[in-house]
Amino acid sequence: MTTLQSDPTGGPADRPLRVALLGCGVVGSAVARLLTEHASDLTARVGRPLELAGIAVRRTNIDRPGIDPALFTTDADELVARDDVDLVVEVIGGIEPARTLILSAIANGASVVTANKALLAEDGPRLFEAAETAGVDLYYEAAVAGAIPIIRPLRESLVGDDITTVMGIVNGTTNFILDKMHTEGSSFDDVLAEAQALGYAEADPTADVEGFDAAAKAAILAGLAFHSRVTAADVHREGITEISSADIAAAKLMDCTVKALAICTSEEVEGERRISVRTHPAMIPNSHPLASVGGAYNAVVVESTNAGRLMFYGPGAGGDPTASAVMGDLVTIARNRVRGAAGPGESAYAQRPVMGMGEVVTRYFISLEVIDQPGVLATVAASFAEHGVSVQTMRQEALHRAEDGGARLVLVTHSAPESALGATVDALANLSEVHEVLSVMRVEGE
Amino acid sequence: MTTLQSDPTGGPADRPLRVALLGCGVVGSAVARLLTEHASDLTARVGRPLELAGIAVRRTNIDRPGIDPALFTTDADELVARDDVDLVVEVIGGIEPARTLILSAIANGASVVTANKALLAEDGPRLFEAAETAGVDLYYEAAVAGAIPIIRPLRESLVGDDITTVMGIVNGTTNFILDKMHTEGSSFDDVLAEAQALGYAEADPTADVEGFDAAAKAAILAGLAFHSRVTAADVHREGITEISSADIAAAKLMDCTVKALAICTSEEVEGERRISVRTHPAMIPNSHPLASVGGAYNAVVVESTNAGRLMFYGPGAGGDPTASAVMGDLVTIARNRVRGAAGPGESAYAQRPVMGMGEVVTRYFISLEVIDQPGVLATVAASFAEHGVSVQTMRQEALHRAEDGGARLVLVTHSAPESALGATVDALANLSEVHEVLSVMRVEGE
Ligand SMILES: NC(=O)c1ccc[n+]([C@@H]2O[C@H](COP(=O)([O-])OP(=O)(O)OC[C@H]3O[C@@H](n4cnc5c(N)ncnc54)[C@H](OP(=O)(O)O)[C@@H]3O)[C@@H](O)[C@H]2O)c1
Ligand SMILES: NC(=O)c1ccc[n+]([C@@H]2O[C@H](COP(=O)([O-])OP(=O)(O)OC[C@H]3O[C@@H](n4cnc5c(N)ncnc54)[C@H](OP(=O)(O)O)[C@@H]3O)[C@@H](O)[C@H]2O)c1
Repeated sequence: MTTLQSDPTGGPADRPLRVALLGCGVVGSAVARLLTEHASDLTARVGRPLELAGIAVRRTNIDRPGIDPALFTTDADELVARDDVDLVVEVIGGIEPARTLILSAIANGASVVTANKALLAEDGPRLFEAAETAGVDLYYEAAVAGAIPIIRPLRESLVGDDITTVMGIVNGTTNFILDKMHTEGSSFDDVLAEAQALGYAEADPTADVEGFDAAAKAAILAGLAFHSRVTAADVHREGITEISSADIAAAKLMDCTVKALAICTSEEVEGERRISVRTHPAMIPNSHPLASVGGAYNAVVVESTNAGRLMFYGPGAGGDPTASAVMGDLVTIARNRVRGAAGPGESAYAQRPVMGMGEVVTRYFISLEVIDQPGVLATVAASFAEHGVSVQTMRQEALHRAEDGGARLVLVTHSAPESALGATVDALANLSEVHEVLSVMRVEGE
Repeated sequence: MTTLQSDPTGGPADRPLRVALLGCGVVGSAVARLLTEHASDLTARVGRPLELAGIAVRRTNIDRPGIDPALFTTDADELVARDDVDLVVEVIGGIEPARTLILSAIANGASVVTANKALLAEDGPRLFEAAETAGVDLYYEAAVAGAIPIIRPLRESLVGDDITTVMGIVNGTTNFILDKMHTEGSSFDDVLAEAQALGYAEADPTADVEGFDAAAKAAILAGLAFHSRVTAADVHREGITEISSADIAAAKLMDCTVKALAICTSEEVEGERRISVRTHPAMIPNSHPLASVGGAYNAVVVESTNAGRLMFYGPGAGGDPTASAVMGDLVTIARNRVRGAAGPGESAYAQRPVMGMGEVVTRYFISLEVIDQPGVLATVAASFAEHGVSVQTMRQEALHRAEDGGARLVLVTHSAPESALGATVDALANLSEVHEVLSVMRVEGE
């Protein structure tokens, strides 16, 4: 086998590779700094210098210390269309103009690094196809779990194995909020306000607390792990805004912690491999490795038939950690360019069907306020049995408000289809013996 | 940029890639099984079928169920020299004949996967140079920490960052032994015998308990992290055979756990970047993420300037997990072959000098039996001061054997050069006020 030693784009073999940076915010400014500070190491690692061709921003009238002002432009379209651009880093975010800019960069023969999970989860296949056709790279390690290497392990290290589960804490903001609620007993609203004041949550926290960010990441992880195309629309999404202090307290009593999880599974159903992709809060046992992931940290557990259970842990966001992941991709695509071949492209041959949430098998924790009289337990138990749901543990507690004459029932089910669990909860709510369904939460991680 | 779509080795573009497997023991037999069981997935992932060309073993007269007997040969030299072999998997282990076989495979134009840490740590540069010259791949994810993706993250994901520390539990056998000593209070010899009976330790446990295996892995990790050539001879190596139940008990009192660690650091000394590479037992605080890694599991913590602290955790050995890592490499080098270019080669441009152990800065835990009389504390403290070592905590305890008229002093130092710490311990041992130096251990991980 012969390796191309020279640059297939032409020009002298030691010509610098020219990098267009799109966006210079939290992540982009850290990327610009690293390109300058680490220039000589980067040259040695790539085999050729990396040189900033230009930086696209919205506003040119603000001070960006340490970066040559001549590099800035508001004309991103012109920048990615330049003849001499080899590599493009997209850290603007959002769908447009990011999508058009990436497609135009690819059409222009450039390889691309992006940190844009929203775009990849919405329209990834179109971008991957464009890159494959053009024979260029599209890398995106920073799009999921910030600095934690998780894309490359799924795309390459585990590509000879059969991945069954990917389960992770992939949103630092919601983990910070739930962790605070857990350790301080505070309400969701109070902790959200504190997180906003500390800069851990944005002024508009919707993308995080309603689970859109985690859903995008779940779609990307599932697509990679199961060699299938998965978009954000395939992901069952529940946010954490409904989590109450009472839910957290209930979890504690169960020796569990409430975490916002992204969960991707693949299982054999009726002779075919099907996948499920979802993000929602759930109780996990304190003995589970994800239970102790605190603050704004991220962690992803991957289970496969041969490797067993692996865990990846680290900072899931922030300018410098995210820039570290971007720079790893940038050096990789630059090396590929020097060697004359793109890395592995999209692998979506398996096209495993995505199950509807109703089919997905989970476990429920349910707490109910019931009337305190003989036969109630039997009625409640019958309701579970009717829906084919079997109960793993059931505990009855006196209520604080004993004058109400009620009692609290706390149940944990065995695994059952979501549809059956949902129907059971509906039926329970309609029983005259049940005053109130106090709390319903999935239980994960065994 | 154009990508080579056809196979540069010639032949039809859908010709199977032929794989020679060297060794069919714990790892090799799992690789052979996966190549057969996952054939159709592997074909889809690579873009071409992978086909076993032959399997080299020592003995052909033993039963190897599930594998076509016609594949076996005792003539490994002939197998790797065959014209039609594209990819070679070396899972024999040891220096020879593994080295000669790999070099011959490379010279024959094949890309290679190996799990052989001993060979890589002894003579890696020679193999990497041969691969670079031939334009083929040499991949070795399985050589360190079994199924845990750690080579690829260091070689690619973090290649745009500046790694400062790699610290890990990379030998499952010694972690199993120390964990048992910790939880059961048993002696090293008893636990070793138990580990041998359970198959966690080999009949000759030298490579594990004397730290040779961990030293080889430390050399590989340091080389990758610091873009320098590091061999096993550069690694300061201490085994765990001297660890006593008393040491473990002392660690517990300090709210610490004793772990056998591989530690690679890079720091600025006198205006230049120097590295240190060592493996030895050490106390780490129970709050450190490595403290809770139990049983035969492995984990590696990587610290870098921008990504912060990352951790990778999982099964560090065993046939199936190790085969998972081998298969990930095999698919990767097969994809590279289909695309017509090798992946990144050795990156050793930095050639940071390796410090002698005497220069390395560590902390010591020291416990001493001293005579119980006024002035002893002052004498001991003076000994530390003379060697420029400052003491962080010092505690005096009555001895159980009060009739001896002695007392126990327990000290933890601040960071100081090893040479100064060693000289202090020697001086203490010679003080007439000191009956005995009971225990000396490094303290890591803050
Ligand atoms: N922040 C993190 O911790 C993190 C972690 C992982 C992934 N990411 C991803 O990284 C990407 C960037 O995030 P960020 O936090 O760095 O965002 P940011 O701080 O809001 O920065 C966005 C940058 O894009 C520029 N920009 C916006 N619209 C533009 C347009 N139409 N043309 C040219 N430039 C435009 C902005 O210009 P001005 O400077 O002039 O406003 C700004 O420099 C997103 O996809 C995000 O999801 C971020
Ligand atoms: N086992 C693990 O958990 C693990 C984990 C990580 C890395 N590794 C590495 O993987 C490699 C293999 O380990 P292993 O545990 O699979 O070893 P193993 O069980 O001892 O198997 C060695 C294999 O090599 C064959 N062999 C020995 N000498 C040979 C020769 N001269 N010519 C041809 N074949 C020969 C043996 O043939 P016979 O079958 O005829 O004896 C056997 O099949 C080693 O480098 C090891 O460090 C192992």
